[in-house]
Amino acid sequence: MTEPIRDSLPGMLARAQAGERRATGRLLSIVERGGEPADALATLTHPHTGHAHVVGITGAPGAGKSTLTGALAASLAAAGSRVAIVAIDPSSPITGGAILGDRIRMDDIVASAHERIFIRSMATRGQHGGLALAVPGALRVLDAAAFDVVVVETAGVGQIEIDIVAETDTTVVVLNPGWGDAIQANKAGVMEMADVFVVNKADRPGTDDAVRDIEYMLDLGRPHARTDGHSAWRPPIVCAVATEGRGIDTMIDALTAHLAHLELSGGLTERRTGRLDNEVRRRVRQAFELELARAVRADPTLLAAVRSRRLSPADAAQLLADRVLR
Amino acid sequence: MTEPIRDSLPGMLARAQAGERRATGRLLSIVERGGEPADALATLTHPHTGHAHVVGITGAPGAGKSTLTGALAASLAAAGSRVAIVAIDPSSPITGGAILGDRIRMDDIVASAHERIFIRSMATRGQHGGLALAVPGALRVLDAAAFDVVVVETAGVGQIEIDIVAETDTTVVVLNPGWGDAIQANKAGVMEMADVFVVNKADRPGTDDAVRDIEYMLDLGRPHARTDGHSAWRPPIVCAVATEGRGIDTMIDALTAHLAHLELSGGLTERRTGRLDNEVRRRVRQAFELELARAVRADPTLLAAVRSRRLSPADAAQLLADRVLR
Repeated sequence: MTEPIRDSLPGMLARAQAGERRATGRLLSIVERGGEPADALATLTHPHTGHAHVVGITGAPGAGKSTLTGALAASLAAAGSRVAIVAIDPSSPITGGAILGDRIRMDDIVASAHERIFIRSMATRGQHGGLALAVPGALRVLDAAAFDVVVVETAGVGQIEIDIVAETDTTVVVLNPGWGDAIQANKAGVMEMADVFVVNKADRPGTDDAVRDIEYMLDLGRPHARTDGHSAWRPPIVCAVATEGRGIDTMIDALTAHLAHLELSGGLTERRTGRLDNEVRRRVRQAFELELARAVRADPTLLAAVRSRRLSPADAAQLLADRVLR
Repeated sequence: MTEPIRDSLPGMLARAQAGERRATGRLLSIVERGGEPADALATLTHPHTGHAHVVGITGAPGAGKSTLTGALAASLAAAGSRVAIVAIDPSSPITGGAILGDRIRMDDIVASAHERIFIRSMATRGQHGGLALAVPGALRVLDAAAFDVVVVETAGVGQIEIDIVAETDTTVVVLNPGWGDAIQANKAGVMEMADVFVVNKADRPGTDDAVRDIEYMLDLGRPHARTDGHSAWRPPIVCAVATEGRGIDTMIDALTAHLAHLELSGGLTERRTGRLDNEVRRRVRQAFELELARAVRADPTLLAAVRSRRLSPADAAQLLADRVLR
C-alpha cells in the first residue's frame, strides 16, 4: 500500500474521474488548503465542468437535512448516478453537538449504501481562503470528477447558508410540520432561495398546516426571490419521511423538473455565469484585503493619527487607497 | 430671510454648534450626498468629536422604538441636554408602511417637545456611498455640533441594524412582552449587541416572562457578545411603558451607568477606536470596488473567457488583481 509522495494533478483528476475515492479526497484537500496548488487545480478542472447538477439542501437544524440527503443520494445512486455530498459542518459552539449528531446519523445510512456515493465534510472556519472560495473550488473538482449530482448540505439558515446556496443550480429548503411559522423563517432570506420545498417528518401532525403556510407565502409572492430562471417556476412542495425513504422519488422528480426548467428557460446558464463572475470578484477582493492589511501594518502611524483626531478617516482612506490601488 | 447660495463649511459648523437647526440639517445633507464635500466635512468635523454619547436603539418593528426614542429625548432635553435623533428609515417595501406609522407617532410626541431636540431621518437605500459611510459621517457632524446625546434608531433586526449598532457607544435592544422567544431573536445576532434591554409595553401580560427569558439568556452567556468594554457588564433590563413615559428615568440611569462603565474599563476608547479603524477600511474598500467594476467593464472578454471555460476564475482574478492593485 505505498503511494508516491507527490502525485500530478492531472493524474489525480483522471483517477477521480475513474471513481477512485482517495484521489477525489486528495483533490478536495488541495482545494481546502488553498494557495497556488488550489489555483492550479482550478485551472485544470474548470474546462471539465458544467455537467453535474449541483443541489443545495438547507433548512433549520433538526429538520432532518442529513437523513434526507442520505436517502436522496442512496436513491439516485441506486438508479445509476454518481453522487457526491459536501456537508458543510457548523463551526458554532452552540449548535455543534446537535449537528454532529445529524452527521453521525447520515453516515450510518450512507455507510450501507452505494459505491457511487462520495461524502466529504467541510468546516466553516479556519480554512485558508475561507469557505467562500473553498466551496466553489470543491464543486468544481466534483463536477470535473464526473459526478452526476453534487449535493451541498448546509447546517442552518444564516448568511453562510445563503452564500452557499447561491453556488447551486437547485436549492431545496427543508421544513418540518410544527417547525412553525414559515413567515418567520422567511426573514432569514432562505425561504426565498427555495426552488423546491420539502416538508420532512410529514408523518407528524401539522403537515397540512406547514404546506398551507408555504403555499400562502408563495401566493403572496416572493419579492426578493432569485430572478434568474425563476420565470414561471413555482417551487413544488414535497412531503417526505426521510427516515423511511418516503417522498424521495417525488423529491427527485422535483429536482429533475427544476433542472429541465432551468435548461429550457436559460436560467441554468444565467445562474452558472453569475456564480463564476462572483467567484472572480471574490478572489480579487481577497487579494485586495491582503494588500490592505499589509498597508495598514506597514504604517501604524496612519490609524493612530485618525484615533487621535489629527487625520480624518476620509483622508486616511485616501492615503491607503493611493498605496494599495493602481 | 435671504441666505447665501453657498456657505462655508466652518461657518455652517459654527452655527450648528450654536444650536441652529438649519445649519445642522444642511451639514447632514452634505454627508448624505457624499463625494468630496462630505470628505471635506469629515476633515473639518473629526477634530471636534468624541464628546457625544452615541446611543443605538434597535428591536423588532412594532416594539415601540420610536415612542421610546421620543420619550427618552424629551426627558434628556428637559434635564438640559442637547439631543439629536437619527432615524434610519426602512427601505423594505414590505415593512415600509408599519414603520412609517411609527415615524409619524414619534414626530407627534417630539413636535411638542424641547427646542434642544433635533431629528433627522436617513434612508437605507439610494444614497451615494451607502448608509455604511453616511451613518458615521452623520454621527461625526452631530458630535461636532455639540449634541450631548445622539440617538440612532433603527427599523428592524437585520444586518443593517447590526452594522449601525456597531457605530454606537451604547446599544439598547427593545423587546415587548409576548413578542416571544428571546432565544429566537438571538439568532439575528442583535440580542448579543445589547448593553441595555428595555422591555417596552410592560403594562401588558407576559412582562415577567420576557424579563425571565432575557435573564436566562444572559445566564447562558453570550458567546458572540461584543468583547470590548463588556468585562463585568451585565446588561440591565428596564421595564417601560413609553407611551406614558414610565421607565424612562430608569432607562437614562442605565445608559449613564453603561457610559461610566465604558469610561472606567477603557471600553469607550476601544469601541471608538474600532469604529474609526473600520470606517477607514470601509472607505478604502469602496474605492477598491469602484476600481474593480471599472476594470471588469474595461475588458469584457475576461469574464467571457471564464464563462466559456477557456480561463479559470483563479487566473482571471489574478489578471484583474494585477490591473487594480499595486
